[in-house]
Amino acid sequence: MRHICDACDTIHYQNPKLIAGCIPTWESRILLCRRAIEPRRGYWTLPAGFMELGETISQAAAREAHEEANVDVAVGDIFTIFNLPHISQVYIFFLARMTSARYSAGLESLETRLFDEPDIPWDDLAFETVRRSLGYFLADRKTGNYALRVQDIDPDPRRVHER
Amino acid sequence: MRHICDACDTIHYQNPKLIAGCIPTWESRILLCRRAIEPRRGYWTLPAGFMELGETISQAAAREAHEEANVDVAVGDIFTIFNLPHISQVYIFFLARMTSARYSAGLESLETRLFDEPDIPWDDLAFETVRRSLGYFLADRKTGNYALRVQDIDPDPRRVHER
Repeated sequence: MRHICDACDTIHYQNPKLIAGCIPTWESRILLCRRAIEPRRGYWTLPAGFMELGETISQAAAREAHEEANVDVAVGDIFTIFNLPHISQVYIFFLARMTSARYSAGLESLETRLFDEPDIPWDDLAFETVRRSLGYFLADRKTGNYALRVQDIDPDPRRVHER
Repeated sequence: MRHICDACDTIHYQNPKLIAGCIPTWESRILLCRRAIEPRRGYWTLPAGFMELGETISQAAAREAHEEANVDVAVGDIFTIFNLPHISQVYIFFLARMTSARYSAGLESLETRLFDEPDIPWDDLAFETVRRSLGYFLADRKTGNYALRVQDIDPDPRRVHER
């Protein structure tokens, strides 16, 4: 099934979408945003969003952090990649360092806040991609050795495929 | 500028496209395909193509190898990621091991061939993404330590940005 324009016969190909995000940190704290939009309005997330035309993945991650949290970040290495084939999405999260302590809620956020590890709202996170990225980040930070994870996320949470 | 259907007002969002490929190897040799289609018809490439709905990146890479070279591969780790923002594309190449020595030209290939390192047709490669992926693969193979590269490829080849 394809979308084809009746007027000009242009085929609008549908391809998987790439979502770019980051884990913004200021000293030992992590910046999260509480979503002002559906899905998962009111839940906490890392800044992330659809990559746009003409940008690199890391530029997209920095732009989303700026849009959702009015924060400037220096984007580092890719840290997690998640396939969500049931919704044809690929998530890519980067490590990121805030370049100043200034931040505030953007239009798509109700609230933004820096969290120390014990205060992270694990039960109120918006997405599995965010939960895993935060968990791996905190685990790796203890050793200082950040390892790329590439994983598939299945709609059935009992079926987790890791590579 | 967006494509909007005059009949139903559906907005057909345009997002960057993800191209998945792999470096298929059989013992010490690398499988390349000579392109039967434009762009770069007649030049050698690694099997790669647009990711489709409902698949993971590594499934897309395996499917493309099967379509272009009738070859079965066990897909390994992600090895190179290239941003091509001027054409809104992201390339992801995986390491891959052929699971049998059987291969042949698919519909989009004129020819497929296993190359030993000294025979690789460097002057007749189709794309910069392929040239770099092969170069890094051969360099890393000497040490046995395969390191992920994430790079931007600029339309002006003198301006290469590496992260």
